[in-house]
Amino acid sequence: MCGIVGMVGNQPVNQDIYDALLLLQHRGQDSTGMATAEEGGHLHLFRARGMVRESFRTRDMRSLTGTAGLGHVRYVTRGAATNEQESQPFYVNSPYGITLVHNGNLTNTRELTAEMRHRDRRHLNTSSDTELLLNVLAHELQSTTGPDDLGPDGIFDAVTATMGRIEGAYAVISLIAHHGLLAFRDPNGIRPLVLGRRRPTAADGSPAVDGHDEWVVASESLVLENADYETVREVAPGEAVFITNDGVLHSRQCSTDARLEPCSFEYVYLARPDSVMNGISVYDSRLRMGARLAATIAEHVPTDDVDVVMPIPDSARPAAMEVARVLDLPYREGFFKNRYVGRTFIMPGQAVRKKSVRQKLNAMSTEFAGKHVLLIDDSIVRGTTSYEIIAMARAAGARKVSFASAAPPIRHPHVYGINIPDRRELIAADRSVPEVCEALGADHLVYQKVEDLEGAILDGQTDTRLDGLDMSCFDGRYVTGTVTEEYLGWVRDNQTS
Amino acid sequence: MCGIVGMVGNQPVNQDIYDALLLLQHRGQDSTGMATAEEGGHLHLFRARGMVRESFRTRDMRSLTGTAGLGHVRYVTRGAATNEQESQPFYVNSPYGITLVHNGNLTNTRELTAEMRHRDRRHLNTSSDTELLLNVLAHELQSTTGPDDLGPDGIFDAVTATMGRIEGAYAVISLIAHHGLLAFRDPNGIRPLVLGRRRPTAADGSPAVDGHDEWVVASESLVLENADYETVREVAPGEAVFITNDGVLHSRQCSTDARLEPCSFEYVYLARPDSVMNGISVYDSRLRMGARLAATIAEHVPTDDVDVVMPIPDSARPAAMEVARVLDLPYREGFFKNRYVGRTFIMPGQAVRKKSVRQKLNAMSTEFAGKHVLLIDDSIVRGTTSYEIIAMARAAGARKVSFASAAPPIRHPHVYGINIPDRRELIAADRSVPEVCEALGADHLVYQKVEDLEGAILDGQTDTRLDGLDMSCFDGRYVTGTVTEEYLGWVRDNQTS
Amino acid sequence: MCGIVGMVGNQPVNQDIYDALLLLQHRGQDSTGMATAEEGGHLHLFRARGMVRESFRTRDMRSLTGTAGLGHVRYVTRGAATNEQESQPFYVNSPYGITLVHNGNLTNTRELTAEMRHRDRRHLNTSSDTELLLNVLAHELQSTTGPDDLGPDGIFDAVTATMGRIEGAYAVISLIAHHGLLAFRDPNGIRPLVLGRRRPTAADGSPAVDGHDEWVVASESLVLENADYETVREVAPGEAVFITNDGVLHSRQCSTDARLEPCSFEYVYLARPDSVMNGISVYDSRLRMGARLAATIAEHVPTDDVDVVMPIPDSARPAAMEVARVLDLPYREGFFKNRYVGRTFIMPGQAVRKKSVRQKLNAMSTEFAGKHVLLIDDSIVRGTTSYEIIAMARAAGARKVSFASAAPPIRHPHVYGINIPDRRELIAADRSVPEVCEALGADHLVYQKVEDLEGAILDGQTDTRLDGLDMSCFDGRYVTGTVTEEYLGWVRDNQTS
Amino acid sequence: MCGIVGMVGNQPVNQDIYDALLLLQHRGQDSTGMATAEEGGHLHLFRARGMVRESFRTRDMRSLTGTAGLGHVRYVTRGAATNEQESQPFYVNSPYGITLVHNGNLTNTRELTAEMRHRDRRHLNTSSDTELLLNVLAHELQSTTGPDDLGPDGIFDAVTATMGRIEGAYAVISLIAHHGLLAFRDPNGIRPLVLGRRRPTAADGSPAVDGHDEWVVASESLVLENADYETVREVAPGEAVFITNDGVLHSRQCSTDARLEPCSFEYVYLARPDSVMNGISVYDSRLRMGARLAATIAEHVPTDDVDVVMPIPDSARPAAMEVARVLDLPYREGFFKNRYVGRTFIMPGQAVRKKSVRQKLNAMSTEFAGKHVLLIDDSIVRGTTSYEIIAMARAAGARKVSFASAAPPIRHPHVYGINIPDRRELIAADRSVPEVCEALGADHLVYQKVEDLEGAILDGQTDTRLDGLDMSCFDGRYVTGTVTEEYLGWVRDNQTS
Repeated sequence: MCGIVGMVGNQPVNQDIYDALLLLQHRGQDSTGMATAEEGGHLHLFRARGMVRESFRTRDMRSLTGTAGLGHVRYVTRGAATNEQESQPFYVNSPYGITLVHNGNLTNTRELTAEMRHRDRRHLNTSSDTELLLNVLAHELQSTTGPDDLGPDGIFDAVTATMGRIEGAYAVISLIAHHGLLAFRDPNGIRPLVLGRRRPTAADGSPAVDGHDEWVVASESLVLENADYETVREVAPGEAVFITNDGVLHSRQCSTDARLEPCSFEYVYLARPDSVMNGISVYDSRLRMGARLAATIAEHVPTDDVDVVMPIPDSARPAAMEVARVLDLPYREGFFKNRYVGRTFIMPGQAVRKKSVRQKLNAMSTEFAGKHVLLIDDSIVRGTTSYEIIAMARAAGARKVSFASAAPPIRHPHVYGINIPDRRELIAADRSVPEVCEALGADHLVYQKVEDLEGAILDGQTDTRLDGLDMSCFDGRYVTGTVTEEYLGWVRDNQTS
Repeated sequence: MCGIVGMVGNQPVNQDIYDALLLLQHRGQDSTGMATAEEGGHLHLFRARGMVRESFRTRDMRSLTGTAGLGHVRYVTRGAATNEQESQPFYVNSPYGITLVHNGNLTNTRELTAEMRHRDRRHLNTSSDTELLLNVLAHELQSTTGPDDLGPDGIFDAVTATMGRIEGAYAVISLIAHHGLLAFRDPNGIRPLVLGRRRPTAADGSPAVDGHDEWVVASESLVLENADYETVREVAPGEAVFITNDGVLHSRQCSTDARLEPCSFEYVYLARPDSVMNGISVYDSRLRMGARLAATIAEHVPTDDVDVVMPIPDSARPAAMEVARVLDLPYREGFFKNRYVGRTFIMPGQAVRKKSVRQKLNAMSTEFAGKHVLLIDDSIVRGTTSYEIIAMARAAGARKVSFASAAPPIRHPHVYGINIPDRRELIAADRSVPEVCEALGADHLVYQKVEDLEGAILDGQTDTRLDGLDMSCFDGRYVTGTVTEEYLGWVRDNQTS
Repeated sequence: MCGIVGMVGNQPVNQDIYDALLLLQHRGQDSTGMATAEEGGHLHLFRARGMVRESFRTRDMRSLTGTAGLGHVRYVTRGAATNEQESQPFYVNSPYGITLVHNGNLTNTRELTAEMRHRDRRHLNTSSDTELLLNVLAHELQSTTGPDDLGPDGIFDAVTATMGRIEGAYAVISLIAHHGLLAFRDPNGIRPLVLGRRRPTAADGSPAVDGHDEWVVASESLVLENADYETVREVAPGEAVFITNDGVLHSRQCSTDARLEPCSFEYVYLARPDSVMNGISVYDSRLRMGARLAATIAEHVPTDDVDVVMPIPDSARPAAMEVARVLDLPYREGFFKNRYVGRTFIMPGQAVRKKSVRQKLNAMSTEFAGKHVLLIDDSIVRGTTSYEIIAMARAAGARKVSFASAAPPIRHPHVYGINIPDRRELIAADRSVPEVCEALGADHLVYQKVEDLEGAILDGQTDTRLDGLDMSCFDGRYVTGTVTEEYLGWVRDNQTS
Repeated sequence: MCGIVGMVGNQPVNQDIYDALLLLQHRGQDSTGMATAEEGGHLHLFRARGMVRESFRTRDMRSLTGTAGLGHVRYVTRGAATNEQESQPFYVNSPYGITLVHNGNLTNTRELTAEMRHRDRRHLNTSSDTELLLNVLAHELQSTTGPDDLGPDGIFDAVTATMGRIEGAYAVISLIAHHGLLAFRDPNGIRPLVLGRRRPTAADGSPAVDGHDEWVVASESLVLENADYETVREVAPGEAVFITNDGVLHSRQCSTDARLEPCSFEYVYLARPDSVMNGISVYDSRLRMGARLAATIAEHVPTDDVDVVMPIPDSARPAAMEVARVLDLPYREGFFKNRYVGRTFIMPGQAVRKKSVRQKLNAMSTEFAGKHVLLIDDSIVRGTTSYEIIAMARAAGARKVSFASAAPPIRHPHVYGINIPDRRELIAADRSVPEVCEALGADHLVYQKVEDLEGAILDGQTDTRLDGLDMSCFDGRYVTGTVTEEYLGWVRDNQTS
């Protein structure tokens, strides 16, 4: 999982990108990075492990000069490897000088890697698909444009060629030195990317008389709202936008086969509730998930016996509130979330204590003693957390524990940029709902129906019409069409981000 | 504001104290520190600026060996001065080797400072009242005990003498090298301190056959609960407890005039809801604040016209839920709290942008459009945040904005360890409620009544009977009796922590 | 000034390169860097400000895996700008993945920079001539070789093309991922580069039965000697050598107009005395400089009146010993060199104290009192140090101070990689020898004759025959032929490294 | 081995102390520290591992405010333990606030440690004898002076009492908060301490009209000379000097049994040649050592056969020059000393290569080929280095290698602050000179005679008359009289610094 942002402004953008990265921090907390471009062409890069607040020092920010820039946060998916070298942004100096960030996941990395070394003679120094994507783009920019005449047309030709070579999910932002900021989104629009504009601002952030329009592209709309950009629109599936350093926007549809089928998991869990994505309010979609889930709960749980509805904080809160409202049950927060999570240090000669969900959640016994509690979570992946939560509720005195998931059973890997692992680790992969219920130790277990999740999201459509949703982890249908069992097996054995 | 913890165990305590500090992080995020004592007498200290997660590195933890220890987190109250030298724990090597942490605030620092230099000939290298407190204790230990016979009696004599010299609020934990862990609480029990015990544990945290009982003292009970300690009791007002390195507990009442009058602000805002303090559940007390507040709201706000009740997250949530329940109004969370707050960097030649409450909260327009919203916050101090929140609600489309505070008007400084500043900065200091309402731009403003706050807290009493509550910031009556107008003026001009 | 080293071994080379960089530290103390290549193609880079000992931490070394590698130390020439981004090695990922270090200076950077951006479409992110050189080489490798067939021939073609485009002095070492280590030297052989080989070594440095020959290229021969490499030969002017990852050496003469005219300043000052450069022992050449200088001194100084000969430590020691021997005068060391030189800190509100030569040298009065001292230094550049030294000698009680320089008057800038500045700063640029003598406050001043310096060096020739020496800073004749007055003016105004 | 400095000035002293520590760096390179005192009484401490240049950052220096201060450099003697907590200066806050640095070694630490804990009830957090010394002084200051009347008399009484309790070698500098700077030297004057004064200086270091005299005490006189202090005198054996913050000097002889018997090893090896110690020029004493050694050499070596005299750089240079002059033999420097010594990194899975003397010295073959070389070193301790040097000389082509030591055979441990180890490690402890010669592989071996070393030093006496020299490591006679075989055995088993 990653969050990305890019900006072209009248003033230095480093602080604004930093602020945007803080707002996207929920999309990735393992590493972060920023790149800026100066008018004169110099690119400045900074990458670090850890969260935004911990990573950027004043001296780093001082070096990030320039009025165009981009930023990145990410979760690291593979084992221990929090390698700084694999952090984004990536950079190549030929052609032009290009730096790039990416949210998503390419599904034909094996083929591209082979081409890259032997055909394109470009060096890959990591196993990151982002480095690969950057080099495909660089190669196509080098091939499709001649010396000195790089303009929007040449750039869009190269993006078109790039889209012809890469498969999977991708939202991309890139700076081309001396030229401007390029952004594009995969032909299925799986990962989000929204475009915003504001009137010129002065150095203190106030409106300015002089200067060009300022632009932002970002994973989530709250970045725009927070910095007083108006939302222009989503970058369309298969579309590329190019913004020159002096604030002129160009765009082209670069795919002949674009469909808007965004990732449903953004609505279920990943996006912040105060974002609007593809025209659909995330918060509202979660309320609707709650309303539909309530109906299903009513079919399976004796709600008369239920004393209280409780969310697993934070992401299940809207759905739980709506479940309580629809079922006319009291809503209470019986779990308190520990905000400050630390490390377990390895001390010479000391045994390591096992960390449990209790370090993340605490149960307030007042709300549990003698009650039948109905717990609402956004989804159930491995089931280990749900199991511990149910045990905590019982330990806090609950008479009965019912559990409901605002998402359907997760039965398939997610290959489009969300780390849902190996099928063998998914509790629902090979279990019926009653079997999962038993495994979790719940009195009742209710899952959202697949069609209800779809409906809860799509009911929020506004001007933007969706062609579908990527529901692959629920139904096994991968919208890009080229995801085979053989590929899923390879991914399982060679976890990529 | 500070959080403190101390432990005597069978195994090295560094990881446990680290975990406890994470749980107390909400009590102070500017600096942290730890000290441990080895059997052989060596004391190890570590102090750093910043939050716990950012501060402790493996090599720091490795140096913190020993089976007894203490820890500290704190907010820094004075201007820019986040001075590492002023971080706790403090240490003196004479007599015995003593390290100490403190939550609270002494109100006779001027008198003590003069005595210290000229009479006791002890050097104060900071203006911290904790350094002062440590040196008073050290002096009394040196004066009241002879060579080589330091036992519980000598220690308690010294604490008695110390309590005779210092005034204010204090919960103190201290390690005396070669001897053990000492903790004591001021005669009014203003600041909290709770005592826990568990059976011997092995290196991996599991129960052990061998070893003595393990002890903990901490600002809040959730530290005990989280690490499987049973709550023994609160340390009583004026009481000192001394735990030897081999786990034997001694205690004595060291004050002839002890009364339990704890700080009401712990219940209003500071403590975590899942703590039980002086026998009263913080969470439950906040629910009762909501219930009582609801009644007052009903007197002043046309609740028929109200569409929704909303908390200002996080601390107002329980009160708001109960307000909604009592008034039978929908409960919704229209504000989303940004968890990741960063810095504003000073760049050469760049103007600094003003940070506003919008960096901390985002309004979700769905919940506001066309509605009369009733916002519940825990309290109103300066009013600047409330003013911005109300403006945000209107900007998000609210038809009317009513605002209610679960605490009464704050009209006086807090001198017992909570940073409620200079009276001139308090919005309610010299304003009537209608005037505050107008200043905040609300349609209606409701404050909790003083007697209702008191009742909401005291109704939760269990075995422990309180003699009163410190409500000084609401009613101007300071329980220690020696806080004069002249003193408040001096504090205003010489802000101490 | 820079020092460079490259190695292809059977074992990881990081420690060996580190040790080599320590031996080359005298050639540059402002920044350092290392790159290594793994068999699998991964390149690892590390760059830091400061000296070798201060820069490399264990974790940096751990990341520098691979059996081929290169390293760099350098002096920064431009004002305050010790920019980490400008540190070597530089890296490009297209084609192949190339990392490169360079000792020397290009004299047609203006032309190359223009070509690079507009014709070759490669991004330069710094103003370093090394980044430029790397990109010219990368472009030629991309242009002259097709996909997948990169072998020695293709590489040598690209080097030939590169030499056709770049002018100046350069000794270059480069790693090409998946292929091997490339090194080449400018057609005039201005900067040194020596090639060594040793039998396979095991992980502990001892000889091994298995494995290929191990190779090293380095600025100075002492690197070879210290690590038990035998000297194969100098890399010839205009020659390129390419060593595959499995230890096979290829070489080609890439220039049609190669002449060996090395920089005389290596012998005068820069190289370590225990190095042999172009077949000539640096130490022996300095002895001969002393012998010839002695003859000239005898012409100009009443040596009967001289009491003692003293070197300015450390580099003038051999020449001074030989002057003493030839003139049959006592040799003594009256100056003690402070090895540990620190910084002047800028404190708020404190004036900065002027640093003087006294922080580097101390005079021992015993050796000066009442004596006529004959001081020998290797050269005189600005004259400020010499002036202070003479004053120190007088303050220490010298009766008379004669001063002799083992190098002739420096009257012209050095544009081939040694930082001899702007002509206006050279004390001898527009002054006669008597005028310099007066400016320095010496009683007598003797300079080496230009032909004597040349003879002192060339007399040491062994098998290798030199075609001349670069003596440009003494005689103004620049061996590359294209250094014009206009160029020197531009350099003066745009100091490059 | 340590170096110490203290200053009382009119301006902030941090930069001056930093500069002084650089000049004393040869006395200790493992850790360094500084403390300063402000007029208002605040003490600022900084301690770090490593060399001065690497340790102090601007922010550290900024915190070291005040016009009085002290500094320290030291070698760490015990195994791996470079513990920051054991770095000097040490600090106690009771009484008064005292910080202290120490050069030397106490020989009754066992007795003092026991008293400290049980009688004086003071905590020792390290096993450093400096912490012990500070606490003895603190205890005596507390015992012998009453509240508020601390003046020179009280201080000198406390020093007198301290001298009555401690045994061994010590030169001490201490800051007493609010009062001033105290310095004293052991009754045998074993370790050096020199006192200097200068006229008031302004912030930029230039002379000032206003202000009091400025004072310095330091291990070596070159600190004074370098910063334009005039040498007032040595602090006398058993004397204490106390300088108030406003520059008034007080002094008293605190021992009834003072004798000046300084450590001969300062002259042999430790001190810088440009220092004058106890009125004797170190440089001159080394010349005299050379002259006397020459005579002994002439007795034992066929000097007609010797081709050249060479020093082992750097400390043997003066003696070697004088040997050459007296024997009328050519003087040459055949060994080049590597100035930049680094680390051997422990890499996972890589064998560690053995470091040898070749990393410190390089032999220039020109000077060795076919010659009989006479090598001069300052002393021979373990013999391992000498053995390797002789082998290097032979490998470089020497026909014969004679070796001479400017110091006599070292046969006994040094317990007064120089790390000459366990007798079992001393090559000469149980060997005759011919046996050592054979063990080293030399053709001839000559040691200075004990009486010649003594004479070489004492011949340099000026106004100051010495009562003797500490020659204990040569002759086994320990000037403090209480060093027994039992004690030496305990030291061997519990190496202290």
